[in-house]
Amino acid sequence: MSKQLTHIGNKGEARMVDVSDKPVQQRIAVAQGEVRLSPDTIQLIQNDEIGKGNVLATARIAGIQAAKSTADLIPMCHPLPINHCEIEFEFPEAGDSIAITSTVKVNAQTGVEMEALTATNLAALTIYDMCKAVDKNMSITNLRLVSKTKS
Amino acid sequence: MSKQLTHIGNKGEARMVDVSDKPVQQRIAVAQGEVRLSPDTIQLIQNDEIGKGNVLATARIAGIQAAKSTADLIPMCHPLPINHCEIEFEFPEAGDSIAITSTVKVNAQTGVEMEALTATNLAALTIYDMCKAVDKNMSITNLRLVSKTKS
Amino acid sequence: MSKQLTHIGNKGEARMVDVSDKPVQQRIAVAQGEVRLSPDTIQLIQNDEIGKGNVLATARIAGIQAAKSTADLIPMCHPLPINHCEIEFEFPEAGDSIAITSTVKVNAQTGVEMEALTATNLAALTIYDMCKAVDKNMSITNLRLVSKTKS
Amino acid sequence: MSKQLTHIGNKGEARMVDVSDKPVQQRIAVAQGEVRLSPDTIQLIQNDEIGKGNVLATARIAGIQAAKSTADLIPMCHPLPINHCEIEFEFPEAGDSIAITSTVKVNAQTGVEMEALTATNLAALTIYDMCKAVDKNMSITNLRLVSKTKS
Amino acid sequence: MSKQLTHIGNKGEARMVDVSDKPVQQRIAVAQGEVRLSPDTIQLIQNDEIGKGNVLATARIAGIQAAKSTADLIPMCHPLPINHCEIEFEFPEAGDSIAITSTVKVNAQTGVEMEALTATNLAALTIYDMCKAVDKNMSITNLRLVSKTKS
Amino acid sequence: MSKQLTHIGNKGEARMVDVSDKPVQQRIAVAQGEVRLSPDTIQLIQNDEIGKGNVLATARIAGIQAAKSTADLIPMCHPLPINHCEIEFEFPEAGDSIAITSTVKVNAQTGVEMEALTATNLAALTIYDMCKAVDKNMSITNLRLVSKTKS
Repeated sequence: MSKQLTHIGNKGEARMVDVSDKPVQQRIAVAQGEVRLSPDTIQLIQNDEIGKGNVLATARIAGIQAAKSTADLIPMCHPLPINHCEIEFEFPEAGDSIAITSTVKVNAQTGVEMEALTATNLAALTIYDMCKAVDKNMSITNLRLVSKTKS
Repeated sequence: MSKQLTHIGNKGEARMVDVSDKPVQQRIAVAQGEVRLSPDTIQLIQNDEIGKGNVLATARIAGIQAAKSTADLIPMCHPLPINHCEIEFEFPEAGDSIAITSTVKVNAQTGVEMEALTATNLAALTIYDMCKAVDKNMSITNLRLVSKTKS
Repeated sequence: MSKQLTHIGNKGEARMVDVSDKPVQQRIAVAQGEVRLSPDTIQLIQNDEIGKGNVLATARIAGIQAAKSTADLIPMCHPLPINHCEIEFEFPEAGDSIAITSTVKVNAQTGVEMEALTATNLAALTIYDMCKAVDKNMSITNLRLVSKTKS
Repeated sequence: MSKQLTHIGNKGEARMVDVSDKPVQQRIAVAQGEVRLSPDTIQLIQNDEIGKGNVLATARIAGIQAAKSTADLIPMCHPLPINHCEIEFEFPEAGDSIAITSTVKVNAQTGVEMEALTATNLAALTIYDMCKAVDKNMSITNLRLVSKTKS
Repeated sequence: MSKQLTHIGNKGEARMVDVSDKPVQQRIAVAQGEVRLSPDTIQLIQNDEIGKGNVLATARIAGIQAAKSTADLIPMCHPLPINHCEIEFEFPEAGDSIAITSTVKVNAQTGVEMEALTATNLAALTIYDMCKAVDKNMSITNLRLVSKTKS
Repeated sequence: MSKQLTHIGNKGEARMVDVSDKPVQQRIAVAQGEVRLSPDTIQLIQNDEIGKGNVLATARIAGIQAAKSTADLIPMCHPLPINHCEIEFEFPEAGDSIAITSTVKVNAQTGVEMEALTATNLAALTIYDMCKAVDKNMSITNLRLVSKTKS
């Protein structure tokens, strides 16, 4: 078949990185992000009075499930059998946001920074969803990688 | 960020077990369960006369697919690249049930009991679905882990 | 192509029911099931002292997600955009089980009994998963349809 | 069964909103967000010189797929057969970000704001993934609902 | 925001067709394809002697599940709650192929030709998978739309 | 339980191959297939003038995503955390087809031929979907395994 073919130029096509030759190592990534919401909404969350139910419990599960599904969601990510995903919520003193920190671990040939970011992101979106009936001015912001290590 | 934050109490939040430090071992789990149905329905299944088609072939495939999807379905389960899932059906002599036995194998850092239970469960639900037009009194019962080994 | 073909006998092949000519109606189904566990485990659940975290909150979300994914899990089920899924947990007085009741609603051409059963089932499996480190003798039992209506 | 049961308090459990009695209407939602990255990275994207391939084409597809999968990702969201999802990218003049705008349409009993936010979010995460080999200081920010209408 | 933005040229970006203004109609599509395999393999299939188990039962279920998942697989497809999917297998007289015909029905604002093609395709791939241990020269061929109607 | 049970005959049930005792090796598979379409459609693709957007970029992503989802789609396939998937498109000189070549790599206990075939197949279906508004006579053909190695 090779003779009668004209190759399509290889500029610009999306591709997975070939990780075949990288060593299996323990890799850990931590990502953070914030949901900005009104002090009143934060009060309702802390008192567990949001109509849709317990906000942080639901967001935590959504984040963990998202970490496991990252390769389904982000086209060039490798499927990775993660060993751990932990999601923590904090209420910064300014009183108008929830900070979300996700930590993901794997023993694999590539890292889990996208898994940590995706977990944080879906936890944030779930907080948004749970509270949107009572707060019309929320936003999700400052989502970023905090650390990435291997050993 | 740490100074201005008030930690949310760590009591009660759902979490994955961190399996990073467990050894990769061959792990096998076996789970059983039963679908209770009328003797007439069992006759129809054995004669392959259920309108929706071959019941056990369909249930077996649903169970195997479920074993592979367990981590999508059960929030704190780890994604595991299973090596094998086998589902057997038996007709106990009492004549009013089908017994389902699922065996799942993996080489991984954690076991596959939830995979075996989920496979059995979805195989049972599929039998229910295939027969519900002719039998209005089915139930699924006695779903349990039978054995769990590692080596 | 029709002339040179020999039809494969149509006995036994699995098939979806063709619901094209059924009316769109509001359809509601309710399913129940039980997880049997030790009184000590029930105590831990009620005191929110299970190591894996809040058991019922996690099980409820797993059940709701399962209701939405039923057609992915059970081969001959139709994909249905459900309007509602509600999962309730009760502790029967005997003190050795949790009763799970799932109610699912849809406006569609076919009913949601498999969605209600699947929701109950995955909620039960999730309770099992959350408690399996402390209770080695759990089982899931008596999963059945309680009611099914349309209007 | 009702007599011997003690109801679990109904405070705090997560629940879907029952949309059974809402009318089917055309509902449109628009969400925006931004990926902040270095001017050099923006240059590489515009010249299609990122090693992982065409960034915006990949991000657009990830966003559209995410809009369709929103109910799988966010626990209390209803599954909705969306009619349209459109994702636009703009390069604000400041030269250090990409603005993402997602518009989603449906004829359904509930709206698509979470679909629009999820589409924007996954498009942003995909841009992050495509560029993370060359830019270590990206963040995703200012994700919010822009408009929501029904007719 | 509009003033300081420079629009990215709208040439070439992938997009879903907006079907908001199309009427809900019953739409039916039929697609066919063929798996080419050796006469010996066909004999094994007809005698149900393939080691991996009943070939056509497994392929039929894979095809039906694929019809339901089409929008997850093909980026610009709309999610559609299909009413019916039927898959038929025939053995053309030449004796070196299996013909697969999939029929899909929906009441929706857009048609199901991709669902019928995807069902046929995954049924074909599943036949390939089931037989690949005994036949090294299979191919899948002549996959095409046969008819498409609405009423 | 074993005494009162009558075993169902073990002829014909579908089963996964147990790969527990196979060594982890680097395994590579290459599959090819063709989409046949009119010269005019090929011209539109090469000039990026198809209304639904960039055809090959979209097909490439669909193919890569399909490679990662193969075990969800083909019932007896093992879930495999693939290391790499690359999809190339060529325009054979005859001018009436696009040739698709997919290469998949994994370090695992079983090979990735179904992953390579599935990637090629979904890339082909996506080309079909993107072009079906302008070309009513496309077909997908000659899908086959080209090579399979391990080391």
